[in-house]
Amino acid sequence: MADVQSLRAFGVARSTVKGNPLTPEEIKQYNDYFKASCYLALGMIYLRENPLLREPLKKEHLKARLLGHFGSAPGQIFTYMHFNRLIKKYDLDAYFVSGPGHGAPAVLSQSYLEGVYTEVYPDKSQDAEGLQRFFKYFSFPGGVGSHATPETPGSIHEGGELGYSLSHAFGSVYDYPDLIALTMVGDGEAETGPLATAWHSNKFLNPITDGAVLPVLHLNGYKINNPTILARVPHEELEALFHGYGWTPYFVEGDDIDTMHQAMAATLEHCVNEIRRYQKEARESGKATRPLWPMIVLRTPKGWTAPRKVDGNYLGGFWRAHQVPITDPNTNLEHLKILENWMRSYEPDRLFDESGKPIASLTALPPTGNRRMSANPVTNGGLLRKPLHLPDFKKYGVAVEHPGAVMDASMQKLGVFLRDVVARNPRNFRLFGPDETESNKLAAVYQAGKKVWMAEYFEEDENGGNLAPAGRVMEMLSEHTCEGWLEGYILSGRHGLLNSYEPFIHIIDSMVNQHCKWLEKCLEVEWRVRIASLNILLTSVVWRQDHNGFTHQDPGFLDVVANKSPEVVRIYLPPDGNCLLSVMDHCLRSSNYVNVVVSDKQEHLQYLDMDAAIAHCTKGIGIWPKFCTDIGQEPDLIMASCGDISTHESLAAIDLLLQHFPELKIRYVNVVDLFKLIHPSEHPHGLSDNEWISLFTADTPIIFNFHSYPWMVHRLTYKRPGNHNIHVRGYKEKGNIDTPLELAIRNQTDRFSLAIDAIDRMPHLHNKGAAARQAMLNAQIEARNEAFENGMDPEYLTKWTWKRDGQ
Amino acid sequence: MADVQSLRAFGVARSTVKGNPLTPEEIKQYNDYFKASCYLALGMIYLRENPLLREPLKKEHLKARLLGHFGSAPGQIFTYMHFNRLIKKYDLDAYFVSGPGHGAPAVLSQSYLEGVYTEVYPDKSQDAEGLQRFFKYFSFPGGVGSHATPETPGSIHEGGELGYSLSHAFGSVYDYPDLIALTMVGDGEAETGPLATAWHSNKFLNPITDGAVLPVLHLNGYKINNPTILARVPHEELEALFHGYGWTPYFVEGDDIDTMHQAMAATLEHCVNEIRRYQKEARESGKATRPLWPMIVLRTPKGWTAPRKVDGNYLGGFWRAHQVPITDPNTNLEHLKILENWMRSYEPDRLFDESGKPIASLTALPPTGNRRMSANPVTNGGLLRKPLHLPDFKKYGVAVEHPGAVMDASMQKLGVFLRDVVARNPRNFRLFGPDETESNKLAAVYQAGKKVWMAEYFEEDENGGNLAPAGRVMEMLSEHTCEGWLEGYILSGRHGLLNSYEPFIHIIDSMVNQHCKWLEKCLEVEWRVRIASLNILLTSVVWRQDHNGFTHQDPGFLDVVANKSPEVVRIYLPPDGNCLLSVMDHCLRSSNYVNVVVSDKQEHLQYLDMDAAIAHCTKGIGIWPKFCTDIGQEPDLIMASCGDISTHESLAAIDLLLQHFPELKIRYVNVVDLFKLIHPSEHPHGLSDNEWISLFTADTPIIFNFHSYPWMVHRLTYKRPGNHNIHVRGYKEKGNIDTPLELAIRNQTDRFSLAIDAIDRMPHLHNKGAAARQAMLNAQIEARNEAFENGMDPEYLTKWTWKRDGQ
Repeated sequence: MADVQSLRAFGVARSTVKGNPLTPEEIKQYNDYFKASCYLALGMIYLRENPLLREPLKKEHLKARLLGHFGSAPGQIFTYMHFNRLIKKYDLDAYFVSGPGHGAPAVLSQSYLEGVYTEVYPDKSQDAEGLQRFFKYFSFPGGVGSHATPETPGSIHEGGELGYSLSHAFGSVYDYPDLIALTMVGDGEAETGPLATAWHSNKFLNPITDGAVLPVLHLNGYKINNPTILARVPHEELEALFHGYGWTPYFVEGDDIDTMHQAMAATLEHCVNEIRRYQKEARESGKATRPLWPMIVLRTPKGWTAPRKVDGNYLGGFWRAHQVPITDPNTNLEHLKILENWMRSYEPDRLFDESGKPIASLTALPPTGNRRMSANPVTNGGLLRKPLHLPDFKKYGVAVEHPGAVMDASMQKLGVFLRDVVARNPRNFRLFGPDETESNKLAAVYQAGKKVWMAEYFEEDENGGNLAPAGRVMEMLSEHTCEGWLEGYILSGRHGLLNSYEPFIHIIDSMVNQHCKWLEKCLEVEWRVRIASLNILLTSVVWRQDHNGFTHQDPGFLDVVANKSPEVVRIYLPPDGNCLLSVMDHCLRSSNYVNVVVSDKQEHLQYLDMDAAIAHCTKGIGIWPKFCTDIGQEPDLIMASCGDISTHESLAAIDLLLQHFPELKIRYVNVVDLFKLIHPSEHPHGLSDNEWISLFTADTPIIFNFHSYPWMVHRLTYKRPGNHNIHVRGYKEKGNIDTPLELAIRNQTDRFSLAIDAIDRMPHLHNKGAAARQAMLNAQIEARNEAFENGMDPEYLTKWTWKRDGQ
Repeated sequence: MADVQSLRAFGVARSTVKGNPLTPEEIKQYNDYFKASCYLALGMIYLRENPLLREPLKKEHLKARLLGHFGSAPGQIFTYMHFNRLIKKYDLDAYFVSGPGHGAPAVLSQSYLEGVYTEVYPDKSQDAEGLQRFFKYFSFPGGVGSHATPETPGSIHEGGELGYSLSHAFGSVYDYPDLIALTMVGDGEAETGPLATAWHSNKFLNPITDGAVLPVLHLNGYKINNPTILARVPHEELEALFHGYGWTPYFVEGDDIDTMHQAMAATLEHCVNEIRRYQKEARESGKATRPLWPMIVLRTPKGWTAPRKVDGNYLGGFWRAHQVPITDPNTNLEHLKILENWMRSYEPDRLFDESGKPIASLTALPPTGNRRMSANPVTNGGLLRKPLHLPDFKKYGVAVEHPGAVMDASMQKLGVFLRDVVARNPRNFRLFGPDETESNKLAAVYQAGKKVWMAEYFEEDENGGNLAPAGRVMEMLSEHTCEGWLEGYILSGRHGLLNSYEPFIHIIDSMVNQHCKWLEKCLEVEWRVRIASLNILLTSVVWRQDHNGFTHQDPGFLDVVANKSPEVVRIYLPPDGNCLLSVMDHCLRSSNYVNVVVSDKQEHLQYLDMDAAIAHCTKGIGIWPKFCTDIGQEPDLIMASCGDISTHESLAAIDLLLQHFPELKIRYVNVVDLFKLIHPSEHPHGLSDNEWISLFTADTPIIFNFHSYPWMVHRLTYKRPGNHNIHVRGYKEKGNIDTPLELAIRNQTDRFSLAIDAIDRMPHLHNKGAAARQAMLNAQIEARNEAFENGMDPEYLTKWTWKRDGQ
């Protein structure tokens, strides 16, 4: 049994680091600052009027609907403000990440006291009137949220969905060697999977080229209605856990304010000195080692400084302090009085002057200018963003003399291009991926930048390991961590790309959702400068995951992305290598989007030379005359496709149809930019209906072969003229260990099925149609049998190329 | 710097537990078993003919396409077979979870040697012919996959997507006090977030009522192309990490086979004895404590027993052994010879008899009957599944004398029902949720079963903590862990329900995808018996997450689910409390589905008495005559809705319209079962087109108010007659800190917008329509201003009820 008393957050400070760095005068100053901050936190939650309690508190002064969270605020404030001392003392470049949920009262209070909030939002001035507005608009309609939303100066981490504080923090300090991300990790958040593995990010941090993350695990003991795991395990387990994660944990525990001030001040200073020492040693010696970086475990009561009990029920130091600590002062006069007494215990009368401005000794305490954490430009990354130095992508292309008759590996060409992107942007671009970059055929990048690796090396790593302490590629088998790093990297002003197997990108659906939401809100925040787009390259796609089976077949990430705001999402499915290069160049130049690019990694037919590819990608959708027989005439049939493998089969189907019906007028339309399909009222990329008709007509059967689930195309085109003519094929969740042909047949996306679909929609072909249909069915069965027999598809299918002369 | 040599997987065994439990004869037997198993693993990857190498190996004997993964197989086999000894010695009830990716060669080899595979698939007989088929159909078209797919006897964990082995294992042992889940955790898998936090599951395992998980972390050192983190940190960090997670780690490291046999045998036995001792102590004393349960770190080379180098490049003990270890024996004769020699080193001539059957000393080694791990009935959970004892849900309903004029809290009623489900099924049902059960208004369940908590207790837990070692509710702030537990619990034959905030269910999109895929494949596996459905209750929904802001607003999980196979997915949006009860009763009785139920947790208008609710839910969709004015006539307008809040606004819109146009013939249609909307060719629940027309006609304007993203309805109805008449409103990603009204207005789902939409589609209303439209706009603005002023919506909106007499 553990000594349970040692796990309590009460009493005189217990700490690993001893020392009393603060003078009594400083303790007084910090305590005033702490009180003023806590007052602000509570004011945000409760007050609509009477912001400084200059009158007795009445229920009319309260917000009608009480919202907001107090629980983690005092501990976060405590950490933030004590770090200010060190920023000033050592001229640190630092910012704050608020991991616990609903941390806004903490960080907003700090930004307000630093004066940054007023600079950014002048109507929230440092006086009674401004304070009243500051309070009122917290968690109020039309106001700001209870998380560290984009409206919050100093925030790059909202914390609405929990689990990403550490990975964001690490992403932000890569390639910023002087930056320290002071990162508050909630003990609830710490139970999430993404957070639990993100501690290992220290194996990917180079003390020479990167900055540092100083995590402060905030053991305030409770989540919404439950204790937290880490607050309820013996000290030795907790210490071992963080040692095991590769950190040196320092403990600061208790609730006695004066001794806690000393303990926290001493501990933070020790940690900063450790960080600086490790960095100095590495930088002076040129040897990048992995020290056991310092981290802090801060154990304080939930809702620290709140009344311990109300009506005999525990409040402070219990989960009831999580949200609005006293819920009914609007209707319970006794509780109103308790609230008033509590708020007055923070001495607003003394700590704000006549005008309502915080007194001079408070405003003198934080650093100044951009050293104020809520003003650090890294938290408005667009300010620091420099465009990438991009090589001319046209030079990396595939020579396509005969469209549709050349095989090449699109992804490998992209790999070479990315290699040179890495080389030209040695501090401004990283490639991220969960152990799949080589499998995804992008290994050329290692020539310019190896994989970052700060754990131990073995001799055989020299034999193709591609590891280096100062690499440029980040690989850890955690999509969550890779995505979190990338988000942190671009939010702080740099550029990057995540590559992933298509099926497993669903692991980070939720993270991408949240990033989209962040980006969209940023558009409404005037002072936020646009950041680089989040680029996601999906490969190892559904149609070539036949050998890995059903679990590896899921192209539905596009559905998740397409639900997000049209202002921020873009989806591209380049049909070949030159289009892939053109699209990727565009994405790397863009800002404030989530760009999703889907491309297979295997060898593929190439259709467009570079000029044609650029023209096609610029339009995003278009007719490919080379593969059409309707030029200058009304088409009998439109074959359309979106996706590289889908395009291959669509064109093969056209070829099949023309073998049987050489006179058929077929139009082929290729879609690169998926949102071209949607009505322009719903996405800025949408074609006008006139443009739509010029491509698809309003009355011709359309056989649309789609890379992903077919319903997506219906969802995009439901408003289009002639939408009932669109017959869509795509992945219908029919998967297994199959050959590519078999997988396609089961989902009816193979050439035979597509050609048959077309015949079925052209009743004017009559008997000749029926005969051709049967012939195609026979050919399909024959190919299928051959594939089953050999365990692989017949060559005449996989090596099929377009051999027709120009039509 | 670490002593790197201590991190190598080579040499004589190094182990925590000393001892030599095996006789020389046993070592020989286990080594034969190991060789035969490794031979099988390699045979699966390479051989199409000549399964016992009775002829010299020729390329004609090889599969044309080489697929499969050898890397982790030897270590997994080694663990599995040494556990067999203990099953026999102690008559253990155990099964095996294969966490590392592509673990099928390991578990298939064991099932084959145990004879189970042949019992289940008689054509894969234990002779040369059966062996040839066993080899050929591995990772071959129409055959079985390279993961532990549903076709694999003994598997409840496929391992296609990594990270869930531990949570599945824990889920399976809850309430099975005698069961041991021997769980191999891959060191790649261990880097994922879900796995990294699942180690904490030991804080939720009761040694009296639950079985045990014995994790074996397999440090084989490499992923696809990278070293693993845990294999490259100093021993002391690794040991500390697992101690910190609350385990006692035992190490077995090396590659010298004889000493490794002794070390593994001794270590496994020690762990089993520790488990039994802890269980005995707890069960005899009645005191449920949390011991530091044993776990094993097994460090062996990747592709253990493979050649160390080929052509001077590292293979064994390096990442090149991950997949097909020698990739080109089809074309490189020298490599073919290396492969042959390697395979012959496993002595197939000696270990299989004349007929091709494994020799008697091999088949005598495993346990027999259901003690064979691949035959344990727990791995075919449907065999063990007993129906829930369900109370009569009708008794928990809401009295609805006046439809639409009664307010009640649907979710609280459900909470009382679930309380009694818990009470009546004390070993067969658990409720799961990430710290939100109380917030989701289901706290009544705690009266029947508290929250399982095996970490430390504080005195204040007595004051509303609802914690107990033997609870029935599982809450950890990890959606991944909760979902993994639930999956393991139902896969092993029990029942359960996960409750979650709607927005954050996206965190487990990928897990639910994978579970759907598992269920769908099970339908094709004859011997798999149907298991209980995976029930997911989503609440704290988008329309009442206004105060939590944009991050908490995402109803898109339905889009992810709707992409899965129609055979296994069901989506319900009950409009009120009685419907919620009826739907939930249905879901709890169902099997082999993923049921998603969406319902708000706040007070709501109630529309249907219990009989009407049952009738409505049974149909899944229907006209509500009480709210219609078209009875017996052709409607001018159809108002439809799906979702409780959506229904409230739809009905309020009808009321508004009737205020202005009392003569209007309005039909109201409510949708509970979302898949009623889709064409029956695409989902078995789909209405026929005739049924569709009887509800929606083919030519009437339809204003459809949907709970989730509106495009879903278009995707479902694109084939429907008159689909161009459907005007859908839903969440369009317009969110913020707003009041419910403001949020609805921004997404045009409020009553005013809906009524205006309707007017806009009825041009025959002429000027009167225009005037009504303006009046509604004015009323909307007025309500909006009032809400902004007060910070909450006007009562006449929130408390709106249906006051009309029966029409």
